[in-house]
Amino acid sequence: MPSTTWNRHHVLSLADFTTAEYDTVLQTAASFQEVLSRRTKKVPSLQGQVVANLFFEPSTRTRSSFELAAKRLSADTLNFAAASSSMTKGETILDTAKTYLAMGTDIMVIRHKEAGVPNAIAQEMDRLGVRVSVLNAGDGQHEHPSQALLDLFTICTLIDPANPRLELLKGKKIAIVGDILHSRVARSNIWSLTASGAEVHLAAPPTLLPKLFTEYVFDEESESPEQKHPSSSPIPPSPHRQLSLHWELEPALQDADFVMTLRLQKERMTAHLLPSLREYHQMFGITRPKLQLCKPHVKVLHPGPVNRGVEISSDLMDDPEFSLIQSQVTSGIAIRMALLYLLGSSKI
Amino acid sequence: MPSTTWNRHHVLSLADFTTAEYDTVLQTAASFQEVLSRRTKKVPSLQGQVVANLFFEPSTRTRSSFELAAKRLSADTLNFAAASSSMTKGETILDTAKTYLAMGTDIMVIRHKEAGVPNAIAQEMDRLGVRVSVLNAGDGQHEHPSQALLDLFTICTLIDPANPRLELLKGKKIAIVGDILHSRVARSNIWSLTASGAEVHLAAPPTLLPKLFTEYVFDEESESPEQKHPSSSPIPPSPHRQLSLHWELEPALQDADFVMTLRLQKERMTAHLLPSLREYHQMFGITRPKLQLCKPHVKVLHPGPVNRGVEISSDLMDDPEFSLIQSQVTSGIAIRMALLYLLGSSKI
Amino acid sequence: MPSTTWNRHHVLSLADFTTAEYDTVLQTAASFQEVLSRRTKKVPSLQGQVVANLFFEPSTRTRSSFELAAKRLSADTLNFAAASSSMTKGETILDTAKTYLAMGTDIMVIRHKEAGVPNAIAQEMDRLGVRVSVLNAGDGQHEHPSQALLDLFTICTLIDPANPRLELLKGKKIAIVGDILHSRVARSNIWSLTASGAEVHLAAPPTLLPKLFTEYVFDEESESPEQKHPSSSPIPPSPHRQLSLHWELEPALQDADFVMTLRLQKERMTAHLLPSLREYHQMFGITRPKLQLCKPHVKVLHPGPVNRGVEISSDLMDDPEFSLIQSQVTSGIAIRMALLYLLGSSKI
Repeated sequence: MPSTTWNRHHVLSLADFTTAEYDTVLQTAASFQEVLSRRTKKVPSLQGQVVANLFFEPSTRTRSSFELAAKRLSADTLNFAAASSSMTKGETILDTAKTYLAMGTDIMVIRHKEAGVPNAIAQEMDRLGVRVSVLNAGDGQHEHPSQALLDLFTICTLIDPANPRLELLKGKKIAIVGDILHSRVARSNIWSLTASGAEVHLAAPPTLLPKLFTEYVFDEESESPEQKHPSSSPIPPSPHRQLSLHWELEPALQDADFVMTLRLQKERMTAHLLPSLREYHQMFGITRPKLQLCKPHVKVLHPGPVNRGVEISSDLMDDPEFSLIQSQVTSGIAIRMALLYLLGSSKI
Repeated sequence: MPSTTWNRHHVLSLADFTTAEYDTVLQTAASFQEVLSRRTKKVPSLQGQVVANLFFEPSTRTRSSFELAAKRLSADTLNFAAASSSMTKGETILDTAKTYLAMGTDIMVIRHKEAGVPNAIAQEMDRLGVRVSVLNAGDGQHEHPSQALLDLFTICTLIDPANPRLELLKGKKIAIVGDILHSRVARSNIWSLTASGAEVHLAAPPTLLPKLFTEYVFDEESESPEQKHPSSSPIPPSPHRQLSLHWELEPALQDADFVMTLRLQKERMTAHLLPSLREYHQMFGITRPKLQLCKPHVKVLHPGPVNRGVEISSDLMDDPEFSLIQSQVTSGIAIRMALLYLLGSSKI
Repeated sequence: MPSTTWNRHHVLSLADFTTAEYDTVLQTAASFQEVLSRRTKKVPSLQGQVVANLFFEPSTRTRSSFELAAKRLSADTLNFAAASSSMTKGETILDTAKTYLAMGTDIMVIRHKEAGVPNAIAQEMDRLGVRVSVLNAGDGQHEHPSQALLDLFTICTLIDPANPRLELLKGKKIAIVGDILHSRVARSNIWSLTASGAEVHLAAPPTLLPKLFTEYVFDEESESPEQKHPSSSPIPPSPHRQLSLHWELEPALQDADFVMTLRLQKERMTAHLLPSLREYHQMFGITRPKLQLCKPHVKVLHPGPVNRGVEISSDLMDDPEFSLIQSQVTSGIAIRMALLYLLGSSKI
């Protein structure tokens, strides 16, 4: 493992991540990526520690990724799924978390459909003066830091496998396409990508990227962004953060180095935010012809699960020349091992 | 581990637990509590053994506690949840248990909404002459031995952390408050606490502690308590067991050393056994002012999950000066490690 | 472990299993059966490997058996249950499998209600040139190879515990009774038992063993069996495969050495394929009097879970003189350890 000065006790948001922290996570993940290529893919780093996956919102994919990462660090894992839990018995979320704390949990990986739940739990743990760490595995429309970090790792290791680091993205043009408004993945990625010095371009229909969002990001005079858009993280206007918004796909794709597509929740249709999947695909779906606008070696990312033929055409998704989707899943194990290791080893 | 003459093959009820057995469990748990304070919280005691959690009635909290206890003893664990199981395919419970036996299970941890299921399974296993152990993790309104043992351990380690033992409770006044009638936790606690020589006072509204229950406990002449109240364990009248019943809270709290509140199932309301949660809280909820009646250093216990503001006021629950609720959860791991260890190591 | 020339990368069907392969599996399972009799029932064979149980169709029993087999080989396990998964989010099955591949899964154990899903996933993995193995844990009405192999192991170890091998069944008469038409267990067993040189007799009511099935099996001239009965494996007519069909129980039981009963899905009743459970039991249920027709030391098998009093009388099921049902479950662990070991160790 790289020597590091990691001091962070929880990973809740990327809003205040420093370049040193990004680089520590990327380099630790690179070490674990190397472990994963060995015959025996386990290390004893977290032996005897307990990682509890508290998934108040169900997710097999993300839970499996955290569970396997924990097992490869030799931690013991506990899975909590809200459906069959005390939640139905009227217990509060904080009380559930405190119960897992009292059982001896070292790291809580928390997913919840409401923004802010992992933060609230982390605050309560800090108030109690206990050493448990909280890792946000997705909260409402707020953040999903491990997803953005695995996206970052996927891109950086493509550019320099031996030495992935934030500065590699400086000056790259990255398009984020789709339901920006409701996406915690987009929000976390905006933090990390703009921090790297990349040029970030958001593209979505107006209903999924409202003018309000634009003002919110760019208007330094707006006194209370939270009130305008309560579910958004405030994105600070900054000369160092390059963020552009588009209601059409083409300007975002023009000369892009990377295109990140976002999952489209089919519920948006019933909420009348979109006319039809077909029309969405025609306007914002990523297809081989549309990629002609990008740089020649452009790569496409998607957090999964993919609606084939909606966010991305099926043939493009399966084309390893363009698609990084499988690499993202693999990076997910390395990044989550890195996060659990950095949080867990600070306790020992 | 303490040297011990443990001969019990199953833990189904506390009705016939001896003082020596209580003390063996308490001392073994104290050894494991010490293990849990180490950097590596695992011991190899049950390596290669299989602990199957057969939870026909769902419970995340108790299942997680047993699962973690088993993992810290290095056992392999299998989780069975009734919802997604063969039960829906018409298999009998005994056949399900025999299937897990044939797979090589060493210890079955069983929860079921019907009283007597763990006993029936244990009897069947004994009839078959096999060495598998059965641990009752809660059966209907009958018993929940590991809960009562962790309550006992919590209280005893508070009094003498270095040497927890049953006799420490002699002469203490302990109030058990709430839905006594339907509570397997109360029933198991009545066995252990009265065995210790504590003065046990039950307090509940008449609908949740009927006169029948009183007669049942005290009337030595009643020929068939089971018929009167089929779901209750018979509690033997004994000059050594000091048990008082009250339909008001105050006499139970007066000079109490410990107050155990019980979870109120909200279903009781719809069954018209209670007028309202608000009225219940006013009459039987534990609050700071009501605790004035108790001894100055009184402590409050609750098996969880708690309905805040119903069984106990929210501020009191969070006050470490009075509340032992978090300690109970922590004790749960040590007690369950002790029970699994005592049952499992007899097989080796 | 026996030295072996195992070259199979997936286990999807028994249709093309060779005698050498059957014997390798049986002998490897015998070695593990011996491990399971030791005090510590684990071996480090698959340490660091990942076994993912992808159960798109729920099954506690089979999933627990594979999970425990994997844990006893020291593999890490991931459980995927369709209910709480991305499947409900519109992801395709192949994409789910590729996600688990990208996480680093070494062996995928797959159950699905549609025939052919494990094959489709295996083909896709081979097309991608990756080393992951697919093990069919039951697909629609197609095959359930590990069940047939554990049945085979149960019978062979009964005949020669020290050296179980396929040829032991040569000339034995084996009756398979019940819902042949819809049974993947029957289909896999027909392959293995006829390959052994046993005389296999199928017995079922005409609605559950239609004339079509007969023609399909015996008519060498039929050009397209798949079209006639799309969910069946084609069973090749062969002078070496001895298979007889009966619409009554008696000729199948006459002088039988082994009787395999099949689980009756109660849904068959609502589909009007059967008049009533009672009538089914009278005609095809296995009872003590009916066993008089068989050889004196006849044994009865059932894949479980059993509907007591339907496929088999309750007293017979519990009689260890006749019933091999518990042995089958125990054999299941040894056979699944053998299959995982053979698939997994080829990767190292």
